[in-house]
Amino acid sequence: MLGFLACMLVVSVAASALSDPLPSWEESQAKRQILDFVGRVTARGGAHFVPGTQRIAVFDNDGTLWAEKPIYVQAQFVIDRIRSLAPQHPEWKDKEPFASILKGDMKGIAKSGESGVAAVMAATHAGMTTDEFDKIAEDWISTAKHPTMGRLYTDLVYQPMLELLSYLRANGFKTFIVSGGGIEFMRPWTERVYGIPPEQVIGSSGGLKFEMHDGKPLIVKLPTLVLNDDKDGKPVGIERHIGRRPVAAFGNSDGDLQMLEWTCDAPATRLCLLVHHTDAEREWAYDRSSRVGKLDKALDEATAKGWTVVDMKHDWKTIYPKEVKP
Amino acid sequence: MLGFLACMLVVSVAASALSDPLPSWEESQAKRQILDFVGRVTARGGAHFVPGTQRIAVFDNDGTLWAEKPIYVQAQFVIDRIRSLAPQHPEWKDKEPFASILKGDMKGIAKSGESGVAAVMAATHAGMTTDEFDKIAEDWISTAKHPTMGRLYTDLVYQPMLELLSYLRANGFKTFIVSGGGIEFMRPWTERVYGIPPEQVIGSSGGLKFEMHDGKPLIVKLPTLVLNDDKDGKPVGIERHIGRRPVAAFGNSDGDLQMLEWTCDAPATRLCLLVHHTDAEREWAYDRSSRVGKLDKALDEATAKGWTVVDMKHDWKTIYPKEVKP
Repeated sequence: MLGFLACMLVVSVAASALSDPLPSWEESQAKRQILDFVGRVTARGGAHFVPGTQRIAVFDNDGTLWAEKPIYVQAQFVIDRIRSLAPQHPEWKDKEPFASILKGDMKGIAKSGESGVAAVMAATHAGMTTDEFDKIAEDWISTAKHPTMGRLYTDLVYQPMLELLSYLRANGFKTFIVSGGGIEFMRPWTERVYGIPPEQVIGSSGGLKFEMHDGKPLIVKLPTLVLNDDKDGKPVGIERHIGRRPVAAFGNSDGDLQMLEWTCDAPATRLCLLVHHTDAEREWAYDRSSRVGKLDKALDEATAKGWTVVDMKHDWKTIYPKEVKP
Repeated sequence: MLGFLACMLVVSVAASALSDPLPSWEESQAKRQILDFVGRVTARGGAHFVPGTQRIAVFDNDGTLWAEKPIYVQAQFVIDRIRSLAPQHPEWKDKEPFASILKGDMKGIAKSGESGVAAVMAATHAGMTTDEFDKIAEDWISTAKHPTMGRLYTDLVYQPMLELLSYLRANGFKTFIVSGGGIEFMRPWTERVYGIPPEQVIGSSGGLKFEMHDGKPLIVKLPTLVLNDDKDGKPVGIERHIGRRPVAAFGNSDGDLQMLEWTCDAPATRLCLLVHHTDAEREWAYDRSSRVGKLDKALDEATAKGWTVVDMKHDWKTIYPKEVKP
C-alpha cells in the first residue's frame, strides 16, 4: 500500500512537471518562443545555459502587466489626490494645472507641460514621509475603481503575464518591474499582486531626505526627480538597481525600447518581448498613434531584430484573472 | 535496513540543525544576542515572528565585513589608478591633488578637500562605460595586495561575519551591503566573496547615461554624484533600493549611525550591531579618534539604546578565513 502511494506521488509530480505552465496562452509562436527560451537557458551543460543568479527578467508595468487605458493608473491617482487635497488649497481654483484638473479639463492639463507636471507631482508626491505616502497609495489602490470597467485596478492585471511571471520564477528567474511609474506608488502592492517584492521594483524616483524629529527617524519625500525611469532611463535604472544585464525583457511601448535594446544586445540567447494591444473587444487596440503606451519605433525594431511580439487578441485566451466585461 | 538508514538520516539532519552556526564566535553576550534574535523572528506563531519576505539584513562593508586600515580599500584603488593613468596625463605633475597622490604625499591629498576628491573620482570613476569600469575594478581586486598584510584584500574579510551572513541566509534573510564605498567598485566581487549578488549591493553612486554607438547600447559613467551612501545617505539608499525597513543592521562606525537608528526604531524585536575594533594584535584597535572608521557617537548611542557591541578581541576566535599574520 505504501509502495503504491509512493508510486502515485512520483506519477503525480511527473504529471505536474509536464502540465502547461502557460494555460492562458494560445499555442502560438509567442508561446513557443517563451518556452524555447526558458528551455535553452535552463539546460545545464547546454550551449545557452545561464546560471541561476544571472537569470534576471525585467517587466514594464503599465500596458505590460496591467491595463493603461484610458489614462495611466498613476495619473488617475494624481487627479484623485488633487481633488481630495483641494479644500486645503483654495488658491488652486485659479492656478494651472490645478484648476484644469479640478474642472476635469484634460486639454488644460496637457497644455501645462513639464512645469505643470512637476508642480502636480510636488503637490501629490512630496512633502510627506515615505511611510505616509505608502499608506496613501495603499488606501487608494485598495478602493479606487477603473472609470469604465468598474473594477479595482489590481483586478485589471493580465492573467497570461501572471502565469509568465510564475513560470520564470519556477525556473530560477528573479523577476523585476522596471516602470516609468513612481517607485513608491507601486511598491505597496506589487508583492501581493505580482509576487514581486519592493526591492525588485524599479521606477521613477524622487529625492529623499533622512531627518530626526524628537529622536524619531523619518524619511521625507522631496519635490526633486532623481530618476525618470522611462526610455533612456530604463537601462540606467536597471544598472543602478540590479547591476547586471537582464537576459529577458518585457514591454509594450516605445518607452521600453532602450530596455529591450540593452537586454538583447548579446551574442547569447536572450528574450525580448512586446505586448501588442490588438484586442478592441476584450481590452483596447492601440499602437503607433496612441498618446498612452505609444508603440511605433519599438514595433519596427522588433520586426528588424526578431523580437517576440504578442498579438493580444489572438495569442491570449483570457485577459484578466477573473471575467471582466468592458 | 532501509528503516535504519532512514533513521540515521533523521538523526544526522537533527545533529546538523543543532551544530554551531557561528563557530568563530566566542560564547559571549554578542553571540547570544544574535542567536536569540534569529530564534525570535523565525519562531512561527511567536510574538516576534517576522515573515520571510520581510527578513532584510543590511551590512556596512568597510570595517564591518572587511579590513579598512590603514586606508579604505577603494582609496588605495584610486591611488593605484592615478598612478597607472599618469603617463597619459603629464599635466597631473603640477596639478593638485594629482601631484600629491603621485608623490605619495597623504597630507597634500587631505588638503585638497571635497573639490579634490571630486576631481580624483571624476578621473578614475567616470568617462568610461560601466562594462569597462567593471573590468578595471575586477582586475585590480584580483591582484592588488594589502600594503602591510601582503594579502589580497578579499582575503582580509572577517570569518565571523561570513558565518553570520550564511547563518542569516539559512534562516530566510536577504542580506544586503549598504556601504559608503562605490556601488560599482563592490559589485564585481561581492557575490564571490560574501555570497551577496550585485542587486543586493547599495553604495555611493554616480550618474549614468545610456547611449547608442553604431547601433550598440552602452552605459557611460558620469562625473556626478547621485547618492553619497554614508551617514544620512544610508537610510536613503535603503529606502531607494529596498523600499522597506530592515530588521537587522550591522556597522562599525559613525557612518552607520543613521542606518542603525532607522532599523532599530521599532516596537518589535530588531538587531542593531556594531563591530568594535579592539584587537591591535590580530587586526587594529581604533574608535573615537580614528580618521578611518571613526566610532564615537554611535558607540555612545549603542550603550544608550542597548544595541549589540562586538568586542573583536574577546568575541572573535578568528579574524580572517585563513591564517594571516599581520
